[in-house]
Amino acid sequence: MSSHSNMHTLDIHSATSEEILSLDNIRSVLIRLEETICFQLIERAQFARNARCYLPDGFPQLKEREGWNSSWLAWFLKETESTHAKVRRFEAPDEYPFTDPKLLPKPILEPVEYPELLWKHEVNVNDQILKFYVESIVPDITKTLGENADDGHYGSSAIRDIEVLSALSRRIHFGMFVSESKFRTEPAAFIPHILNPNREALAALITKPAVEAALLVRLAEKAKVYGQDMDRAGANAEEREKARKIEVDTVVSIYKTFVIPLTKEVEVDYLLTRLQGVEEEKVKEMVRSNKFVS
Amino acid sequence: MSSHSNMHTLDIHSATSEEILSLDNIRSVLIRLEETICFQLIERAQFARNARCYLPDGFPQLKEREGWNSSWLAWFLKETESTHAKVRRFEAPDEYPFTDPKLLPKPILEPVEYPELLWKHEVNVNDQILKFYVESIVPDITKTLGENADDGHYGSSAIRDIEVLSALSRRIHFGMFVSESKFRTEPAAFIPHILNPNREALAALITKPAVEAALLVRLAEKAKVYGQDMDRAGANAEEREKARKIEVDTVVSIYKTFVIPLTKEVEVDYLLTRLQGVEEEKVKEMVRSNKFVS
Repeated sequence: MSSHSNMHTLDIHSATSEEILSLDNIRSVLIRLEETICFQLIERAQFARNARCYLPDGFPQLKEREGWNSSWLAWFLKETESTHAKVRRFEAPDEYPFTDPKLLPKPILEPVEYPELLWKHEVNVNDQILKFYVESIVPDITKTLGENADDGHYGSSAIRDIEVLSALSRRIHFGMFVSESKFRTEPAAFIPHILNPNREALAALITKPAVEAALLVRLAEKAKVYGQDMDRAGANAEEREKARKIEVDTVVSIYKTFVIPLTKEVEVDYLLTRLQGVEEEKVKEMVRSNKFVS
Repeated sequence: MSSHSNMHTLDIHSATSEEILSLDNIRSVLIRLEETICFQLIERAQFARNARCYLPDGFPQLKEREGWNSSWLAWFLKETESTHAKVRRFEAPDEYPFTDPKLLPKPILEPVEYPELLWKHEVNVNDQILKFYVESIVPDITKTLGENADDGHYGSSAIRDIEVLSALSRRIHFGMFVSESKFRTEPAAFIPHILNPNREALAALITKPAVEAALLVRLAEKAKVYGQDMDRAGANAEEREKARKIEVDTVVSIYKTFVIPLTKEVEVDYLLTRLQGVEEEKVKEMVRSNKFVS
């Protein structure tokens, strides 16, 4: 058993780069995030769709009183991420804001010395995550409460939105750790497809169909167990199934059609700029030896 | 089946007082909060105890840069509750802040017209909830990561702390709806023990031992299911039990030794001032007819 078999969070404060970038360790974080995503989807699904929260002009008071020209959810994100930015959340290599960084305050804590993990990059797909979440995930998980229903619980649903979005963002951007880990293990395989950019070839190098298939099976099992109705011991199977807190297919489909493909995009985007600023001698040495040179 | 059988949130925006205060409705909210509390405890339990976050002087930077004289968690609560106060969270009859209301901003939204639900009162036991949470719940749920361990994930653990605290606070203060509901059903039984204050008699009127016993059985089942290890299909029962995300006994004990007794205290505290400002004629009429007079 790995020494990190009980570690489900990123141990960036005390582990070495090698420990953090071990595939075992990365996988345990990704697997643990499945729970977080299931739990938070279930929590959001108790409120109605509340489409008004996602419209740029849904709450004119935000414009009048706060000078805010975007949606209720975007305002909640900005407020929340401002608090978190003060305590340097977005300096961590696995945290990316939804809010334009220009709108966020500077940290009040001194910087943390993180081990060298990711190469410098510009990857942030939170706009895509937000769009898919609002247009597809929210309508899907709230439809049992009525298509396009509104229950007035705008604050409660926004708080849950932020939890789901943060978990999805962390999950998807974590792909960069997978990329970095695999790159370090076998740099000679990657370098030609970075120098002569080939997305398909890079995607093939990081894709393990068996791992993806196992993920979907495991996720379905989790959605089934966590989303079941546990309050009607006397009810028959059909009644209990109707009272599920979330549909298994919905959760699986979120991963299959969105999380997995977007993670792959992030992984490839990251790899494509992985050699920018790396000295030519080092690149040659890595191709020659197929060993990572830091 | 009740027309609100699928309603697990408080429908304060469209239901009548009578619907909201039906015991069926109140119970469905309380039962649904068991899920939230289990999920959020499990989420917090992935991080270490991080005792530094709860000490008044744990982060001198908060004092230097933010003029903040209390703990990291109290600062996170103040920041979060400030955002929520702006959108009038604490005007809702089921939401109570942990932060001194004097430190919170005024709402930027116009007030909501809530139906008449609770009588005016001063009940807020969040200080007790915070104390028990920091001194007992956090050490308990994090002990498998090491007694008094610190993983440096101060932001992540504070975000989880706030989720658990909000859910516990909502659960415990919701007792006032139980009190109001039972008072309205049978005012003549309550009034003598309010006029001649008798905590024990009032507690007896709102306590249903069979309901409490059923709650603990149901909660244990939820903690067992939601806290199980779902990642080691091949492991034997002992290995899987060791990898639980939370102990069943811990969750049950939180309710048994803390949530249930404190809810009862809230219920009685609320009842004791339930007649303040009610006209004497109305009180007499309620005693005579045993019918609620609004």
